[in-house]
Amino acid sequence: MKIAIVGYGNLGRGVEKAVAHQEDMELVGIFTRRNPADVKSESPVYSVQDIKNHAIDVAILCGGSATDLIDQGPELCQSFHTVDSFDTHARIPEYFAKMDAVAKQNGHLALISTGWDPGLFSLARILGQSVLPNCESYTFWGKGVSQGHSDAIRRIDGVLKAVQYTIPNADAMEKVYAGEGQALTTRDKHSRLCFVVPKPDADTEAIREAIVTMPNYFAEYDTTVHFIDEETFNREHGGMPHGGHVISRGETSPGTQQLMEFNLALDSNPEFTAAVNVAFARAVYRLAQEGHQGCISVFDVPFAYLSPKDGEALRRELL
Amino acid sequence: MKIAIVGYGNLGRGVEKAVAHQEDMELVGIFTRRNPADVKSESPVYSVQDIKNHAIDVAILCGGSATDLIDQGPELCQSFHTVDSFDTHARIPEYFAKMDAVAKQNGHLALISTGWDPGLFSLARILGQSVLPNCESYTFWGKGVSQGHSDAIRRIDGVLKAVQYTIPNADAMEKVYAGEGQALTTRDKHSRLCFVVPKPDADTEAIREAIVTMPNYFAEYDTTVHFIDEETFNREHGGMPHGGHVISRGETSPGTQQLMEFNLALDSNPEFTAAVNVAFARAVYRLAQEGHQGCISVFDVPFAYLSPKDGEALRRELL
Repeated sequence: MKIAIVGYGNLGRGVEKAVAHQEDMELVGIFTRRNPADVKSESPVYSVQDIKNHAIDVAILCGGSATDLIDQGPELCQSFHTVDSFDTHARIPEYFAKMDAVAKQNGHLALISTGWDPGLFSLARILGQSVLPNCESYTFWGKGVSQGHSDAIRRIDGVLKAVQYTIPNADAMEKVYAGEGQALTTRDKHSRLCFVVPKPDADTEAIREAIVTMPNYFAEYDTTVHFIDEETFNREHGGMPHGGHVISRGETSPGTQQLMEFNLALDSNPEFTAAVNVAFARAVYRLAQEGHQGCISVFDVPFAYLSPKDGEALRRELL
Repeated sequence: MKIAIVGYGNLGRGVEKAVAHQEDMELVGIFTRRNPADVKSESPVYSVQDIKNHAIDVAILCGGSATDLIDQGPELCQSFHTVDSFDTHARIPEYFAKMDAVAKQNGHLALISTGWDPGLFSLARILGQSVLPNCESYTFWGKGVSQGHSDAIRRIDGVLKAVQYTIPNADAMEKVYAGEGQALTTRDKHSRLCFVVPKPDADTEAIREAIVTMPNYFAEYDTTVHFIDEETFNREHGGMPHGGHVISRGETSPGTQQLMEFNLALDSNPEFTAAVNVAFARAVYRLAQEGHQGCISVFDVPFAYLSPKDGEALRRELL
C-alpha cells in the first residue's frame, strides 16, 4: 500500500521511520507546506499543494489538531483515505461529523484520533468499561514531557531553557489499586518535575517562586524545580519520553475485585505515536478495500486488521 | 438479547452473575447435562437436550475445552450463535476450522477462545506485534492458582488438601523491562508456591521432597512449600485468584525503547473470564445481526461492539 506523510515535524519523521519497517508499505513521499527544497529528508519531498497528482492509498496526517487537522483533514479526505491523531478531546464530535460527511461524499475512509491518548488508552478504557460491572477507569500520564508546561516555564524572566515532566503519583496509584481512588482529581494523581537552565546572573529563587505559584499550571500541584547547566540539559533532557497508565477496576460480585491495567513507557512519544498511526493505516487500507466508508475511530477496528499476518497465522501464533 | 448458559460449573456461575449486570441482556436459562432438578440456581434450569426448543440469540458455552467444547461447540452452533473459551492452544486451528464450517452451513456466528488467555492477553500480544518493530512479547502468569499443579500435589501420599500458586518472577520481569529478556524460559519466568494440609501423622519432609523433585511440574522451578492447618487453608485459600502480565518491547529506532504492558490482577479467575465472555456475546449478537457468519476470534471484533453504548457516546466519553 502507498503511504503519504502530510507534515514533517516530529510525528512525520516518526512515521517515515515506522513505514520503513513495513514490508507491505511503500512511502510515496512527504508532503509539506514549506518549500520542499528546504525540507531535509532521504525520502521524496513534495509540496502539499501537488498531493492530488500522486497515487496514494492512505495519507497519514501529521499536523497539529488545532492549527492543521481541523481544515486539512476534511480537505484531504476528499481525495484519499486518511489517518490522523486529532487530539483536541472537546472538538472530536465536531471533527468526526465533518470528516464523516466529506469521506462518505467522496467514497473514502477516514480514521481519526489514533495514537496513544486518544488511541490505545481509549481502547484500554472501553475494554474496562465493557467487561467490568460498575467499572472505574483511571488514567495517569507520565513520566513524560508536557510541552505546554515547558513552554510556560520558558516564558518566565531569566529562563534560558526548561523542560517539565509530568509524573504519576505512586500513592494515588496505590489508592486506585486498593479501591480507594474515587475522590482523586487530576492534580492528586500527578506531580510536576521541572529542569531549568537559568540565564547568567538570573535570580533562581525568583524563577522557582514564579513556577511553583503559577496558577493552573503548577500552583495546585506538588512541583519540584531543579536548576542545571546547559550542557547537562542538552545531554539528559533532549528526548521526548512519555507514557502512562490506564487502570480499570470493577467488582464482578460484592468484594471480588478485578483489576485491568494498560501501561506505556515510551522513550519517544512521537515515534510511538507514529508507529500506532502506521498500524492503523494498514487497517484503514484493508477496511476501505472491503467497502467501508466515512469516519471511524480506533473503536471500530478489529485488531486483526492492524497486523500484516493473516488470520490463520495470528490464531496459531498469538491467540 | 436472549442469552443461554450451557454448563454450570465455576464459569457458568460467573456468566450468570455477569448477565445480571447487563441491561440489554436476558438470561433464558441454564442448560445442563445433569438432571435439572439437581442443579441449584435461581435461574431457570433445563436439560441441554431440550435446548433447541428455546428461543436463544447467543449460547455461551461454559464447558471444558478437551472434554466438552470439542464436540458441543459444533453441535450447538448448528442452532445458535455461540461464544466459548476454548483454550487448548494446540487444537485451536482444528477447532476453528470445524466451527467455521458448521456455523457457515447454518448461518450462524461462533466466537471461540475468548476469556483472558486466550482472549485479552491475545489482544495485548497482537497489539504489541502490530505496532512495535521487531517486537518481543513476554507473557507472565500469576499470581494465580494452577489446578493442574494443585491436583498433582493432592495425589501425593499423606496430602489432605493442597493449592499451588504460580508466581511471576520479579527479576525476570526486570530483565524484560531492561531489554534483556530474550533468553528467558517459562521456568525462568515463574516460581511455584504451595500450601499443603497434611493428613494426621503424615511425613511432611517426605511430602516436601516429593513435591520439589516432581519432574515437569516442580523440579525445574523454584518451589516453596508451606504446611498449614485445614482451618487456615479453608479461610485463606478458597478463592480462585489469577492474573498476569503481557509485556511487549520494541525499538522504533536504534536505542529508542518502547514498552507496552497489559496486566490483570483478578480476585476470581472464573468470574472475570465470564465477564469477558458476556461482553463478547454482545459483539457476536451485533455482528450476526449485520450478517457476519462463520467462526471468529477476539482478533475480529471491533471494541465498539463490546459496549452497550453507541458510537457517539463512546467517542465523547472514552476516546
